[in-house]
Amino acid sequence: MLTLQDVRQAAEYIRGKVIRTPLVEAREISEVLGCTLSLKLENFQLTHAFKARGNLNKIRHLRGCCRNGVITASTGNHGQGLAMAAALSKIPARVVVPECSPQTKREAIVNYGADILVHGSDYHQACEHAHTLAEQEQWTYVHSFDDADIMAGQGTIGLEILEDTPAVDVVLAPIGGGGLVSGLLVALKESRPDVKVIGVQTTAFPSMAESMRQGRVTSVPEGQTIADGVAVRRPGELPFTVIRQYIDDIWLVDEPDIRRAMNMLIKRAKIIPEPAGAVTLAGAMTRQDEIAGKQVAIVVSGGNVDATLLKSEI
Amino acid sequence: MLTLQDVRQAAEYIRGKVIRTPLVEAREISEVLGCTLSLKLENFQLTHAFKARGNLNKIRHLRGCCRNGVITASTGNHGQGLAMAAALSKIPARVVVPECSPQTKREAIVNYGADILVHGSDYHQACEHAHTLAEQEQWTYVHSFDDADIMAGQGTIGLEILEDTPAVDVVLAPIGGGGLVSGLLVALKESRPDVKVIGVQTTAFPSMAESMRQGRVTSVPEGQTIADGVAVRRPGELPFTVIRQYIDDIWLVDEPDIRRAMNMLIKRAKIIPEPAGAVTLAGAMTRQDEIAGKQVAIVVSGGNVDATLLKSEI
Repeated sequence: MLTLQDVRQAAEYIRGKVIRTPLVEAREISEVLGCTLSLKLENFQLTHAFKARGNLNKIRHLRGCCRNGVITASTGNHGQGLAMAAALSKIPARVVVPECSPQTKREAIVNYGADILVHGSDYHQACEHAHTLAEQEQWTYVHSFDDADIMAGQGTIGLEILEDTPAVDVVLAPIGGGGLVSGLLVALKESRPDVKVIGVQTTAFPSMAESMRQGRVTSVPEGQTIADGVAVRRPGELPFTVIRQYIDDIWLVDEPDIRRAMNMLIKRAKIIPEPAGAVTLAGAMTRQDEIAGKQVAIVVSGGNVDATLLKSEI
Repeated sequence: MLTLQDVRQAAEYIRGKVIRTPLVEAREISEVLGCTLSLKLENFQLTHAFKARGNLNKIRHLRGCCRNGVITASTGNHGQGLAMAAALSKIPARVVVPECSPQTKREAIVNYGADILVHGSDYHQACEHAHTLAEQEQWTYVHSFDDADIMAGQGTIGLEILEDTPAVDVVLAPIGGGGLVSGLLVALKESRPDVKVIGVQTTAFPSMAESMRQGRVTSVPEGQTIADGVAVRRPGELPFTVIRQYIDDIWLVDEPDIRRAMNMLIKRAKIIPEPAGAVTLAGAMTRQDEIAGKQVAIVVSGGNVDATLLKSEI
């Protein structure tokens, strides 16, 4: 089981290796929502997504004991994170991406020196192929969320939020496979049990919400969403265990909500989020009553968005 | 003459009233430029521009002694700053904008409750009209840069840069009329004389560079630039005095440089700058040799850019 100590050790290790991202007050959006809203800007992170944290922590544990190299499947951000972390430790990396993964993310993976393979129409098909390759060619598979070291790395965001805003009442984070939220939950609930932590998913991929409802990890059908970063049909077993224990709620947002939130972050916070990075604001905007008057921190999880999509959201 | 004490008092006064903007490490751009580059994100400031600082400080000095209200001329950001600061102190405000001022800035001025008047094809024509109105109707004119209280307010950015990066070697700031750079110079040079401070202007409006060359404040002809925020034909007398004493250099950038810098801030730093907010990066990109290996902080002075222009730069 993941512990606060694991997250603290991860924080110690990644300090100076990743960007200490700012938690920025968004005064204009706060006024619109009637709360005090801060943005944890992981779009400013190395690789422009929080995945840099977990992968650095994972590679720390793998060094000296991975096989021919590391391999993974990813819609993009995890692939970038692994490619970056592997390059720093001079470990060969391969990333299998599904056809839907954005061009900008693919280019970044290649720029970090990893091999890229396009396979399958969604994350799960890419995943199967990557597992097959891992077995055939004796590479070490690094899961993007169902891994305690990855979860601990992502959890460092929670420690930083507490450092910067000790009086935070509510933290919102996106849920794809659950790696980020589970790490956050351990960091926050084991330091300040009264902080509310809410996960946000899309109505197109409500996999964690559905798993919670059924009391076990379950798959949802393939949906359609612009938020490729949280388009995960089946959440992780390890994250599920943590989330079931600690999470206060999971909110669902739909495509128009995400587009409105992206537009608001661009126009009123002057940042570029990727769609998955805007689902937390989408959640805040649709559940305004539940956060009124509160000190709210939302994780803007990444900023890797193709120019065409970005233009259409301005 | 403006003193460090004035800047410190301004900082004391505006604390908590404005956003304490982050100074963010831009690792990817640093790698491209071969230096350690940080961005002082005044596009995150109230009104999305540094002008909020100077105007709050100005209104502090004016309270109880302004006439029927405050009036100014502005291409937009100063007008927003004055409108916001006046509204906080319940003082009526009027802003004369030239025809070239962006729609987004005009709307914001109105949203802060100020009256807006469109007059003239450039800042100087708007300025003359605003002065005439001020005289006719007994309103107090607030100059956007040729004013010691305004300069002191903008200078608070320098104190914050030193707080966040004590080891900074070089600071780059845009020059329009000179209000920002003169405040910065007093804050930086009177605290850490060894810090290099460089102003950046456009080749379309090299008014301060030309004034420095001639040894007196001088006007340049009307030019064409996307950077409306620094499109000033004649710099301020007070800023000129400070700049002549302290500045290390003024660099000029042209339109393609500004566009490249905007694109880089959007793609590699995931922020939205207005064109004037990107001239400092444009300067850094064109003078790479002079900042190699150094700890460089650049002021991203604002983020108020119309959607059409923004789309064309992505």
